[in-house]
Amino acid sequence: MIHLDINCDLAEGFSRGRQTEDLGIMKWITSVNVACGLHAGDPHNICRTVEAALRHGVKIGAHPGYPDVQGFGRRSMNLSAREVYELVLYQVAALSGVTKALGGSLHHVKLHGALYNEAAEQPELAEAVVQAIVDIDGDLILYALSGSKLVEIGLEYGLQVAEEVFADRAYLPNGRLAPRELEGSVLISKEEQMQQTRQLVLEQTVQTVDGSVIALAADTLCVHAESPDLLPFLTELHRWAKQHDVKIEPFCGK
Amino acid sequence: MIHLDINCDLAEGFSRGRQTEDLGIMKWITSVNVACGLHAGDPHNICRTVEAALRHGVKIGAHPGYPDVQGFGRRSMNLSAREVYELVLYQVAALSGVTKALGGSLHHVKLHGALYNEAAEQPELAEAVVQAIVDIDGDLILYALSGSKLVEIGLEYGLQVAEEVFADRAYLPNGRLAPRELEGSVLISKEEQMQQTRQLVLEQTVQTVDGSVIALAADTLCVHAESPDLLPFLTELHRWAKQHDVKIEPFCGK
Amino acid sequence: MIHLDINCDLAEGFSRGRQTEDLGIMKWITSVNVACGLHAGDPHNICRTVEAALRHGVKIGAHPGYPDVQGFGRRSMNLSAREVYELVLYQVAALSGVTKALGGSLHHVKLHGALYNEAAEQPELAEAVVQAIVDIDGDLILYALSGSKLVEIGLEYGLQVAEEVFADRAYLPNGRLAPRELEGSVLISKEEQMQQTRQLVLEQTVQTVDGSVIALAADTLCVHAESPDLLPFLTELHRWAKQHDVKIEPFCGK
Amino acid sequence: MIHLDINCDLAEGFSRGRQTEDLGIMKWITSVNVACGLHAGDPHNICRTVEAALRHGVKIGAHPGYPDVQGFGRRSMNLSAREVYELVLYQVAALSGVTKALGGSLHHVKLHGALYNEAAEQPELAEAVVQAIVDIDGDLILYALSGSKLVEIGLEYGLQVAEEVFADRAYLPNGRLAPRELEGSVLISKEEQMQQTRQLVLEQTVQTVDGSVIALAADTLCVHAESPDLLPFLTELHRWAKQHDVKIEPFCGK
Repeated sequence: MIHLDINCDLAEGFSRGRQTEDLGIMKWITSVNVACGLHAGDPHNICRTVEAALRHGVKIGAHPGYPDVQGFGRRSMNLSAREVYELVLYQVAALSGVTKALGGSLHHVKLHGALYNEAAEQPELAEAVVQAIVDIDGDLILYALSGSKLVEIGLEYGLQVAEEVFADRAYLPNGRLAPRELEGSVLISKEEQMQQTRQLVLEQTVQTVDGSVIALAADTLCVHAESPDLLPFLTELHRWAKQHDVKIEPFCGK
Repeated sequence: MIHLDINCDLAEGFSRGRQTEDLGIMKWITSVNVACGLHAGDPHNICRTVEAALRHGVKIGAHPGYPDVQGFGRRSMNLSAREVYELVLYQVAALSGVTKALGGSLHHVKLHGALYNEAAEQPELAEAVVQAIVDIDGDLILYALSGSKLVEIGLEYGLQVAEEVFADRAYLPNGRLAPRELEGSVLISKEEQMQQTRQLVLEQTVQTVDGSVIALAADTLCVHAESPDLLPFLTELHRWAKQHDVKIEPFCGK
Repeated sequence: MIHLDINCDLAEGFSRGRQTEDLGIMKWITSVNVACGLHAGDPHNICRTVEAALRHGVKIGAHPGYPDVQGFGRRSMNLSAREVYELVLYQVAALSGVTKALGGSLHHVKLHGALYNEAAEQPELAEAVVQAIVDIDGDLILYALSGSKLVEIGLEYGLQVAEEVFADRAYLPNGRLAPRELEGSVLISKEEQMQQTRQLVLEQTVQTVDGSVIALAADTLCVHAESPDLLPFLTELHRWAKQHDVKIEPFCGK
Repeated sequence: MIHLDINCDLAEGFSRGRQTEDLGIMKWITSVNVACGLHAGDPHNICRTVEAALRHGVKIGAHPGYPDVQGFGRRSMNLSAREVYELVLYQVAALSGVTKALGGSLHHVKLHGALYNEAAEQPELAEAVVQAIVDIDGDLILYALSGSKLVEIGLEYGLQVAEEVFADRAYLPNGRLAPRELEGSVLISKEEQMQQTRQLVLEQTVQTVDGSVIALAADTLCVHAESPDLLPFLTELHRWAKQHDVKIEPFCGK
């Protein structure tokens, strides 16, 4: 039987600002990545999201990013490896403690934005990130871009790693995500998203922007709360999974 | 024998900004309150300060404040008790996790600025703060304004409480600190500071702005890193303590 | 003939964050209030919004608020009148200069959030705000809550004032907006919104939450970009205005 | 006769935080660069500094930087040229309008931190910056690193340019500042600073870190408010200037 975790980034607004996030999405996902307050999120939103996840039995992860609210953590910041270690330590510590105080326990860590992309490629950053996670709690699971350097280094340091794939992002032939600036980098239609997902889940491969097909492990599928047509996609995904003996459940190791 | 803890707020700058703090102060104090990133401080400064405290055997406390960098946490923010609970939870969780990852363990919590003053007076805020501390770790010690509502509520909830006094701040007849805007609210000269300290430590009383003398427990003395003449004051204080059988050491319960 | 200005707050996101604002709304409104960077907005979003307004011939206003990104400017901040003067000066100066450099000229000022509500009631704050506007440019038009203290003080200082009403907010018997926390304070359905608007525009009155009807000048109608059903409402409003000889155009003085 | 402008960056704190800046420095300098609120500074500090400059007859400049309070504008941010144009536009507009409202007029623009260094080297950034200044007011004077690309492009676009040198920073053989991370990059002693200044002013040359001597125009000398021994240095500088017929006065064009 094939297992599939569905994860989603949440808590990415501010407490009294405009809330675009519908926590109703909790019933469709199996793990949630909670923004930690530096690229987005604040204590109120974080607590609200953790409590909703606990009510729905959704696994809770920390979602640390660069400290850049205006740039939403999507800009590189040229930090040293030591600074990245400290950034991740602080954010994972906050989420872990908050989750525990609210009656749960932290399940995983998934990086955000520019930090996600850079740690996927740069060994020195990847090591800083992994060391921070290990120093907080070696039982935390690392969610990382499927096939990336970060996956490799996480395993090397003894972490469990969930390889992450995307339903709504186009892939380059080297297995990296096509940059958001590129036209066609975001798959809009539910049909395209479902097709990419089916192939990823059943065949563990993906068709890249130049038409080539590459292998890609698919332990957890990322969906984006702001996607138009997210609910129809998720409904369809659950229906399809049931028919094809794909069990949608939190990632708990391979 | 009389025991006296000396505490100081640190990590109140930003990592690459101007550093006015001299971590050399560590050898003169017995506990440090580390800013948690919302009114001041960032992961780099926090880690640097925690590591220095560990090297010097100084007890480490979390120093949570309102999320207002521009106002340095000194402005009231009209938050609900629930929001205050969440704010304190987040900040204490971050400091506790970071300290543990760096090889130590969190010893106490001391509020900052407007939150310090408001929780000293308002039972609803005080309860929110104390509940957050209890939910993180009931063994944490609460540092609170001597004689305040917060002391009372901390004890009620089962926390150990260190009653805090100030060498360099004038007192009102009701035992509260004279507001910083008031002329004479900050004692500048080393002689005045030493005199107030001697009286607080030996007699557990203080002379207030109207000349009256009131009782005040003095478990821990706060010094401010930005005080001019801080080092001469601390040198004198240590010398005096030695002569008068006052043991300067971290607060560990009464 | 009746004149009606339609205004909308924009530029309230961040440049690389999630954009929920559709600048397509420009064709339905006659004036725009541009966030100035302290409660929301940044230089990129501000410029993008000003340029779109210039293309559509929409009048451009500054929309200053309290410096509180996390609270979206909706929390009171207990600032002195002098600090409010400085806050408004800075924000209006920035918008005015940016608009001029991009080829337009600033038309009006409308406060945001807690500052909007507090300056409507508190004469000292209202005077600080009005003085700042006068010191930047006495020809700027002040948009202010219809019937408020701020309207009065703006006129006293010689500014032109547009009295603002809301299609989607319930009114208290004293003419103030029902607070957002109150159930029923936001009118959701297009029908309710249209009915309130028709009454405001044609009769210059409104029915308040207790059923009473009060007089209210209606120079400019505020619509909210995040309202569900905003476009159907605006389509209906324009259709209705045409039929009833209400001219939808920027406010240019009474 | 030789003319020398002395400039200093100010308003780099926050309104109610710890003030380390002594505005008494105004009597020793001839122009001030006022932080604009994005890397540091807020409306209160900005107004306070502008007012002090007006009282002392010190020329007022805008000091725009990257929007990174935690990094104090010293980290690169990988912005597009368009984003840099918008950033500079916003900040110069704010300072220009505030200064005018307070009774003065803006005299110059000097970039801060990473933006200062990057615009000195990268033509695309330099053009974005210069275009923003021209679009606000073509009479503003550009203060730029002596001998840099930015000087060249400023002149090309028709701005007046003051070439800036440093008393307390070591120079590389290519005329750039030695990076702060480098040991010896900051000249601490008053004697070293005076010697470098004398050579810069009288001979328009500087000795670089490898001992070589290079030519460098010296229209304006930057001093840093946080330098230890700043007042003794400035006293000595003024004394020396008087003896050597160097007139210390604001830069007003060559």
